[in-house]
Amino acid sequence: MTALVACIGGGQLGRMLALAGAPLGICVRFLDPAADACARDVGELVVGAYDDLAALDRLADGANAVTYEFENVPVEAARRVGAIPGPRALELGQDRLVEKELFRRLGIATARFGSLADTGLPALVKSRRLGYDGKGQRLVETDGPVSERELAEAVVAFDRELSIVAVRGRDGATAFYPLAENEHRGGILATSRAPAPDAPQAEAEAIATRLLDELDYVGVLAIELFDVDGELLANEFAPRVHNTGHWTIDGAETSQFENHLRAILGLPLGSTDARGDSVMVNLVGSTPPLDRLLAVPGAHVHLYGKEPRPGRKLGHVTLVDASEDATRAVIDLAAAAWS
Amino acid sequence: MTALVACIGGGQLGRMLALAGAPLGICVRFLDPAADACARDVGELVVGAYDDLAALDRLADGANAVTYEFENVPVEAARRVGAIPGPRALELGQDRLVEKELFRRLGIATARFGSLADTGLPALVKSRRLGYDGKGQRLVETDGPVSERELAEAVVAFDRELSIVAVRGRDGATAFYPLAENEHRGGILATSRAPAPDAPQAEAEAIATRLLDELDYVGVLAIELFDVDGELLANEFAPRVHNTGHWTIDGAETSQFENHLRAILGLPLGSTDARGDSVMVNLVGSTPPLDRLLAVPGAHVHLYGKEPRPGRKLGHVTLVDASEDATRAVIDLAAAAWS
Repeated sequence: MTALVACIGGGQLGRMLALAGAPLGICVRFLDPAADACARDVGELVVGAYDDLAALDRLADGANAVTYEFENVPVEAARRVGAIPGPRALELGQDRLVEKELFRRLGIATARFGSLADTGLPALVKSRRLGYDGKGQRLVETDGPVSERELAEAVVAFDRELSIVAVRGRDGATAFYPLAENEHRGGILATSRAPAPDAPQAEAEAIATRLLDELDYVGVLAIELFDVDGELLANEFAPRVHNTGHWTIDGAETSQFENHLRAILGLPLGSTDARGDSVMVNLVGSTPPLDRLLAVPGAHVHLYGKEPRPGRKLGHVTLVDASEDATRAVIDLAAAAWS
Repeated sequence: MTALVACIGGGQLGRMLALAGAPLGICVRFLDPAADACARDVGELVVGAYDDLAALDRLADGANAVTYEFENVPVEAARRVGAIPGPRALELGQDRLVEKELFRRLGIATARFGSLADTGLPALVKSRRLGYDGKGQRLVETDGPVSERELAEAVVAFDRELSIVAVRGRDGATAFYPLAENEHRGGILATSRAPAPDAPQAEAEAIATRLLDELDYVGVLAIELFDVDGELLANEFAPRVHNTGHWTIDGAETSQFENHLRAILGLPLGSTDARGDSVMVNLVGSTPPLDRLLAVPGAHVHLYGKEPRPGRKLGHVTLVDASEDATRAVIDLAAAAWS
């Protein structure tokens, strides 16, 4: 069998999907408006806008399955090519208010949200659409206008941010990776540690199950959670492979990328067991010298082939069951290059 | 850093080199006479004969290092493009008699070799050049002519075949993977188990070290060894990544492919530690259904994207610390599809 998967978006997530697919005889074709999209190194690239119907048709031509690697894919585009996960997951996730209401309807706890009257002060006011990495949000300490395009969320004094990466197959089988504990820097993910120590795994899986079943979901789904004194509040979900699951490439029996491909192609899911204790460190803005990273014992380096730019995710490094010295060395190298 | 490695040969070894390189920002360009060479899915392919000077120059243009993925590369071609490992390793390894004499000169034990008078009967008579996977050899039980193009080797009643995969960096640093224990079927590798139980690791490393140092070697080198009552006899070496090292992709801290790239680019070597007990099973002739392979817990599937053909290596499956049932299931699936 050689399968062809088509992917809307040709960034690093697409690139890692293709690298996971190649050993299974799965080729990935990408659609991206950028001719230098970094996935082009590892698969065929169709250059075109995400709403270009001819480009979408070229993308999907002959594909065994179509998927996407970012959550702001135009829903119409996803519908046209029959993308998996289905357009409903995309649609619900693209509007923070609709997303939060879905959580509420499913009995999944969240921070208070709505108007400032609902949340109290201080609150985070976020654009309902198109925000990511902390963009499109502001901290509000006094009463003021919140537009219809925005959503207020109560500021939560959480102990830590966790995330769960789940996968559901075409046959409804589900599997869950161990929770990751995440730290951000300037709104951008800096490190994930998995399995998170003393984590409420069962509670997180119950939350993910409700969402997977409600959406009749197929593929990998990630949910960001706040841990407040052991209680989990759902922050947002992403209907795709996720940065907080990158540790699974080196640290789990089957990576999130391989499991996403298995799921959308109707193949059996692979084990989500951790191989040990992983730390994933993002490389943002610029990358430390490769020889220095590779000199750290146990450092698994993943570069995305993207041009350096402040705030841009250029790669990550994962360590599994590494020494504290090794972990510290990678974190320090990444911090020094961070811009 | 984005590095470009050029590789003479675009088969599965080249393909796996490219897949190991991509996460490090290393792109691989291949030269192969076949327009459908299976590495083309994962890198640029120059189609041309191995002795086509223009094609060789195109291959090497702008490359940070040039290497090869099979041992019968014309020595002149390797020399023209400054290939690593150096042409001397190629040259010595391409003639079984010269190879055996090198072992002898280095004090590395081998089976008796030379004429039938040297070996006694029965003996294996092998073509000195271009044999692989048991091709170009015959078992001789009575005295008869052995041409100058052939070499007789005593038949050794060995307990098992082992192999060691070693790597040496540009700075002379060396690292050794645990010995693998190999079983063949019809002259073709069927399974490798690593680390081989109760294996003479130190002796094998001493043999490899002599060879690496003598050749001032850079890159991955594999040596096939016979274990005769705990004594090691060297059979042959291959100046390249090796089928008996494929388990390292899933079963070692750093794969042989990544370490070969690190070595030839002058980067620090990665750890060669095993992650557990690995079994690698070759898929030859035809491949079992992918869904059945992936349904085996812990099966890591690697397909090469090649057309089925009897005797052709089409892929492999690695299990790490797997159950006996899982291992048996993969071996049975591979055996049923073997042709």
